[in-house]
Amino acid sequence: MIIVMKPNAGKKEIDNIVDKLHKAGLEAHLSTGKELTIIGVIGDKRLVADANLELMPGVDRLVPITESYKLVNRKFNVKETVVKVGDVEIGGDRFVLIAGPCAVESEEQIFQTAEKLSKAGVKILRGGAFKPRTSPYSFQGLGVEGLKYLRAAADTYGMLVISEVTGIPALQDAEPYVDIIQIGARNMQNFDLLKEVGRTQKPIFLKRGMSATIDEWLNAAEYIIREHNNQVILCERGIRTFETATRNTLDISAIPVLRAKTHLPVFIDPSHACGVKDYVIPLARAAAAVDCDGLTVEVHPNPDRALSDGAQSLTPEDFVELVRQIKPILDVMGRKL
Amino acid sequence: MIIVMKPNAGKKEIDNIVDKLHKAGLEAHLSTGKELTIIGVIGDKRLVADANLELMPGVDRLVPITESYKLVNRKFNVKETVVKVGDVEIGGDRFVLIAGPCAVESEEQIFQTAEKLSKAGVKILRGGAFKPRTSPYSFQGLGVEGLKYLRAAADTYGMLVISEVTGIPALQDAEPYVDIIQIGARNMQNFDLLKEVGRTQKPIFLKRGMSATIDEWLNAAEYIIREHNNQVILCERGIRTFETATRNTLDISAIPVLRAKTHLPVFIDPSHACGVKDYVIPLARAAAAVDCDGLTVEVHPNPDRALSDGAQSLTPEDFVELVRQIKPILDVMGRKL
Amino acid sequence: MIIVMKPNAGKKEIDNIVDKLHKAGLEAHLSTGKELTIIGVIGDKRLVADANLELMPGVDRLVPITESYKLVNRKFNVKETVVKVGDVEIGGDRFVLIAGPCAVESEEQIFQTAEKLSKAGVKILRGGAFKPRTSPYSFQGLGVEGLKYLRAAADTYGMLVISEVTGIPALQDAEPYVDIIQIGARNMQNFDLLKEVGRTQKPIFLKRGMSATIDEWLNAAEYIIREHNNQVILCERGIRTFETATRNTLDISAIPVLRAKTHLPVFIDPSHACGVKDYVIPLARAAAAVDCDGLTVEVHPNPDRALSDGAQSLTPEDFVELVRQIKPILDVMGRKL
Amino acid sequence: MIIVMKPNAGKKEIDNIVDKLHKAGLEAHLSTGKELTIIGVIGDKRLVADANLELMPGVDRLVPITESYKLVNRKFNVKETVVKVGDVEIGGDRFVLIAGPCAVESEEQIFQTAEKLSKAGVKILRGGAFKPRTSPYSFQGLGVEGLKYLRAAADTYGMLVISEVTGIPALQDAEPYVDIIQIGARNMQNFDLLKEVGRTQKPIFLKRGMSATIDEWLNAAEYIIREHNNQVILCERGIRTFETATRNTLDISAIPVLRAKTHLPVFIDPSHACGVKDYVIPLARAAAAVDCDGLTVEVHPNPDRALSDGAQSLTPEDFVELVRQIKPILDVMGRKL
Repeated sequence: MIIVMKPNAGKKEIDNIVDKLHKAGLEAHLSTGKELTIIGVIGDKRLVADANLELMPGVDRLVPITESYKLVNRKFNVKETVVKVGDVEIGGDRFVLIAGPCAVESEEQIFQTAEKLSKAGVKILRGGAFKPRTSPYSFQGLGVEGLKYLRAAADTYGMLVISEVTGIPALQDAEPYVDIIQIGARNMQNFDLLKEVGRTQKPIFLKRGMSATIDEWLNAAEYIIREHNNQVILCERGIRTFETATRNTLDISAIPVLRAKTHLPVFIDPSHACGVKDYVIPLARAAAAVDCDGLTVEVHPNPDRALSDGAQSLTPEDFVELVRQIKPILDVMGRKL
Repeated sequence: MIIVMKPNAGKKEIDNIVDKLHKAGLEAHLSTGKELTIIGVIGDKRLVADANLELMPGVDRLVPITESYKLVNRKFNVKETVVKVGDVEIGGDRFVLIAGPCAVESEEQIFQTAEKLSKAGVKILRGGAFKPRTSPYSFQGLGVEGLKYLRAAADTYGMLVISEVTGIPALQDAEPYVDIIQIGARNMQNFDLLKEVGRTQKPIFLKRGMSATIDEWLNAAEYIIREHNNQVILCERGIRTFETATRNTLDISAIPVLRAKTHLPVFIDPSHACGVKDYVIPLARAAAAVDCDGLTVEVHPNPDRALSDGAQSLTPEDFVELVRQIKPILDVMGRKL
Repeated sequence: MIIVMKPNAGKKEIDNIVDKLHKAGLEAHLSTGKELTIIGVIGDKRLVADANLELMPGVDRLVPITESYKLVNRKFNVKETVVKVGDVEIGGDRFVLIAGPCAVESEEQIFQTAEKLSKAGVKILRGGAFKPRTSPYSFQGLGVEGLKYLRAAADTYGMLVISEVTGIPALQDAEPYVDIIQIGARNMQNFDLLKEVGRTQKPIFLKRGMSATIDEWLNAAEYIIREHNNQVILCERGIRTFETATRNTLDISAIPVLRAKTHLPVFIDPSHACGVKDYVIPLARAAAAVDCDGLTVEVHPNPDRALSDGAQSLTPEDFVELVRQIKPILDVMGRKL
Repeated sequence: MIIVMKPNAGKKEIDNIVDKLHKAGLEAHLSTGKELTIIGVIGDKRLVADANLELMPGVDRLVPITESYKLVNRKFNVKETVVKVGDVEIGGDRFVLIAGPCAVESEEQIFQTAEKLSKAGVKILRGGAFKPRTSPYSFQGLGVEGLKYLRAAADTYGMLVISEVTGIPALQDAEPYVDIIQIGARNMQNFDLLKEVGRTQKPIFLKRGMSATIDEWLNAAEYIIREHNNQVILCERGIRTFETATRNTLDISAIPVLRAKTHLPVFIDPSHACGVKDYVIPLARAAAAVDCDGLTVEVHPNPDRALSDGAQSLTPEDFVELVRQIKPILDVMGRKL
């Protein structure tokens, strides 16, 4: 951390700060220029995290030099995390496909979807049971009943299950039925929930918040891992910008940024990122080429009868076409489906 | 709602949609232009909310005409909501001040703050007990212990209490101690929590999400009111933009927009909006002049020792100066403190 | 400037940089921590502006400590700039009103507007002759003919003239007719134009770019002043964000931020900021209370027949009401109209 | 276009509007619902473009149904535009590489770059002579001298030349030396310049403005084509968002959106989009897979001595690696280099 002093800061004010740093067990290095003095702080800045140095007399501002997250930080953990769930490895040299409807709507719907997706090579079945919806008048999900259908469909076709939890009660309801727990964009900074899923033994699929910076997202992952669950998968799903031609703006650059900053596996959700069915396949190709670890895609047997997000859902036939188009790109990238 | 057909949509596709609308009990009005046909849908669009009309053959897109929220909508409820809590009225002709530290840190700190603020005319004491913090290594709040100090300090000085709840367990813990329940920006779309606070009998102070549109915010309020708690106060606290000179960007235009759209009272939080102590008073003046119903301001007896948000906290003396500066503007606006 | 080295940077790489700094006439102060070394650079960083230090082996990144602008910087020029034009002083203790139609449309329209506005106390008449419009099919302005009408109307009613120039040819056309030259949001980084207006003797009214940071805006002003024209007025007119309820988002916090960073006068344009007539007066009140130096407001005698921006234009009667509402707030702020 | 009336609009107000539409030669179709009436307008809405219908009594708002651009609109021009320049075809089944330094700095630098890039298969050499820089103290380009070096280097190695013009004088200077004229992000809505380049006979490379919507970008292209130059190439180069880990946010979804809306060819500039050398190659792979028509990439023989944008420049050797990585993806996509 660097402390930048105000141009008019005097010797007394500078000594004062150096003193405070020394008392906290830190070293201070002064650089005095023509305009102002800066103080380099050497040591673990958490020792003065609550000291409000920026408010001490003569201080202009603090400049952080190192990141606040440690456990998810590649600098301190160079080995890539590989999440194992059933016989699927996420974060290794495979490209993993998660697919299914936005919401579980009926036993028939989810069985029909699972059958077709398992034939298309999908190993992980998705489906929402607890749906966070902008309007209270929209379909809110089937709850536990939906999870039972989802589990049964997955078991029938030899698949694993992922589903979103929207709070601690939903987590308790969902845990027996799911193999991977999804935290949605709206709950990325629901810290109570992050801590709680950090205490489970199941992999966590952490979607990026709609307006979360990459640093905030990594701090959210740090919350989970700090509770001793290091099975975290990140999922970029589009950020909110001024552009309205798509539902959100897929931040594809987040993938190379995350590769540089963290050892965790990274997925892309092209369906929520764009919100328009016709754009999903081109974005899936881009995702394969940018070298993320997998995709989560919305697939519905009858998008025109879907109770949520129909506009962005592929049919099972579209999904087969998606796989056909990304397969040769994955070959180029040295990844197997 | 308007259904815009594709330029190449044929008679059969149009008839198909008209049919579907009729079956749902809606009327359809066709306007056929040179380039394309549009269909005006007459009736309650919730009847086809889950019909995915946008996916029917020949449909280009849907254009919503009316808002999805009803109970918070001024169109259907012209009378201003006045929230009564103790002997304080929010949303009438008063300008209500909420003040206190970001977090309750100790019995001494909150009593000291309460004493000075009550003298400065503040009737509602704020203080966080459950703190949502970006990093897990930051101070997380004192929990119930903090709420007890907050309640005791408020009672001693004849004040009311507001505090944030970050989840359903926190709500259960907090309910006995608080007069107003605050939902923070990060939980604005925590729908489980919204429903749950909608079932309490206490006023809800609903802060705008960092990247929530005004429409999403009003839908969040609709979730609460739909559970029969119509004592909702909205609070603008800055939105996330590209500008980094301030922590967030105060969307002051949201006040006249909300006046046009809803009957609920509206507050401004200048402290979180800008994140810099020196900018709080000018923004408080602007808030008074734009004619919102009150302010929530962070005040700490020793900002340089605050465990969170010290940089944006006023001292009690600064707060007295804030009141001194806004008072004559409130006089102009015909509002009493 | 601070140079942050990579955790694995070796002695040779550090020496290398220190050497480069010394050769450029700068001093280097090292702070070596457990994780990494940082180098404080003492001296005028422009000496290494083109040295690409961030690409030297072992360098992680550069952290700027001082601003790149000097002439507009309050740190080096503490005295407030007062722009004098005719008998009007901008940036002193007056609150200056600029008003008029978005575009000059006819002789009659601008004379009619000028008459009413001059009676309402407006000293500076605005009106666009060169209109930057999103679509080529929208009205593009009357050009020099419009400027002649504008000048004649202003002269008739004893007013000054401000008008936007969209390029160097427009500047040459406009210069004889205007007292203040406006640079619009879309040209805030048209650096050729900035340099050219910097060579004129007239005050420049520099609107903020739709997505310009405050730092970029101040750098744009620096371009003008560096050409020896220090008569620059800044105008906040709303920034582009995700919110669509208003045309742009008025960044009212920019006023106190600019007060801290620069000595230049600052205006607000509430009309373009919100784009909706009904929101202009509340925002004008907020502008008066936040203590900017004046307003520019769109006024049209018949907004429903305006050729551009009718939706956000006040009638002259509305404008009289605006003045009536801000006057007592300006009294409170110690500003005279 | 749809006119949405206010809930309380009466018969007289509605008749009034219908009348106005009829007089303009348009048809009006009414849909009267329980809450409100909407009026579908049939005919060319440009007939009432300047009528300010939104201000007529009883009108709530207008909802545009068709786009304001025609010439660039795929709906009216289904055939893909192929831009021919020398023996290079842009927009056909080739994938075209443009590469070179951000700025031409010296004869030696550009010849060295051209030699290496031509060997790597690049047919179009880029290099800035007129540089738009945020700070007036940064290197501003060599001007015509730079263009001469650029032309000579390109001719020596059998390449074509592209360079940015920042205004009409720069355009006049540049035209004799360049094969393709680039309009940079900051000038995307410099309408005078757009019209002027529309009157040249050379292909125009139109970069997206930093905060321009796709619709505004297409309207900017419409300005050019309306002046009878239909050789326009669009280039996505990242948009401004809240995320700071990258310089801008590459809006990769813009490619499929543009494919649906326009017949013009589309490029990606991964260098400006991310601003970090290490992220350029992954983004180039994504660009190849999303199926754009080409890339423009910054390449400098010695990025650590570049006078601008060194941090995002590849070395010629990096560029060879970029080509090696995208080549097999282009094979998959059926595109030839």
